[in-house]
Amino acid sequence: MTASQAIKNRTSYRGNFKNTAIPREDLIKIMEAGLAAPSGCNTQTTSLIAVDDAELLQKLYELTELETVKTAPAMICVLTQEIIAYRDRSFFVQDYSAAIQNMLLAIVELGYQSCWYEGQITDVDRIGRKMADILEVPEDYELVCFLPVGIAAEGLNYVEKKPFEARAWFNGFKRR
Amino acid sequence: MTASQAIKNRTSYRGNFKNTAIPREDLIKIMEAGLAAPSGCNTQTTSLIAVDDAELLQKLYELTELETVKTAPAMICVLTQEIIAYRDRSFFVQDYSAAIQNMLLAIVELGYQSCWYEGQITDVDRIGRKMADILEVPEDYELVCFLPVGIAAEGLNYVEKKPFEARAWFNGFKRR
Repeated sequence: MTASQAIKNRTSYRGNFKNTAIPREDLIKIMEAGLAAPSGCNTQTTSLIAVDDAELLQKLYELTELETVKTAPAMICVLTQEIIAYRDRSFFVQDYSAAIQNMLLAIVELGYQSCWYEGQITDVDRIGRKMADILEVPEDYELVCFLPVGIAAEGLNYVEKKPFEARAWFNGFKRR
Repeated sequence: MTASQAIKNRTSYRGNFKNTAIPREDLIKIMEAGLAAPSGCNTQTTSLIAVDDAELLQKLYELTELETVKTAPAMICVLTQEIIAYRDRSFFVQDYSAAIQNMLLAIVELGYQSCWYEGQITDVDRIGRKMADILEVPEDYELVCFLPVGIAAEGLNYVEKKPFEARAWFNGFKRR
């Protein structure tokens, strides 16, 4: 699958997954794609934990209460550290976002589906921290996102987006 | 080029570019890749301006003083709006970062090189705002990043990264 095809085919999948295990080599490929993303001043602020242990997945499901997690045969948890790139500036949000996007594309390329779950676990109830505790992640890392990984058991939906002309221009604001 | 190949081949290119114009259809493909990225609650906070006008490029070069910009036959400027996804939360940084990563991959797939320039224009001297003024971008948009686009005239360099084992684990922190 070409990069453009993966980019076009990717969508946020929130349905159930087939009961098919994900080979470790695929989880490695997905994580390698994530780690290949750039980071501000090469600070490499993003780390990853793939979860494919059924008992752990069940515990994480109980925290998130998301049906999609219940059936996912694996998930990838995204950890970040607010490492300073220079002076007082860190680009950790940009770093993990680029890593997540790479992983979403690798997931699609390998025939799986996923969804970027972030707001659900970084809210005031701090579900991400509870997930991190289950995975024995120390306090200086934040678990900001997880990606379920599996074969879709249901159809895909694509959200409607504004037309190209409403968001992309040439040589000036709203110019063609 | 497969998605994984584009992900592996992508690197931050800061050298000079060949004096070869970028066809509009390629700039469109790159921007389409950017706009295909997900956004928090589909808020579509990212907009793009491709610049291929020589006079404008020269003005932008004078602002950034980056040699790579001097020779780039085109660049894509990334605009963002801090649109609320829900309650008080906006995911605009995540949104534009995912869009940038998609564009970097599309650029590589098309045979060009680029680099994510953000810190250089979002610092206290607010170069991004000055660039936005040249492009007649209203104040409610922030110009946070630009991507030069061109054919590399020099060799590529790949930064050294920590080994996989230092950043990616299974079923627990630093577990294998």
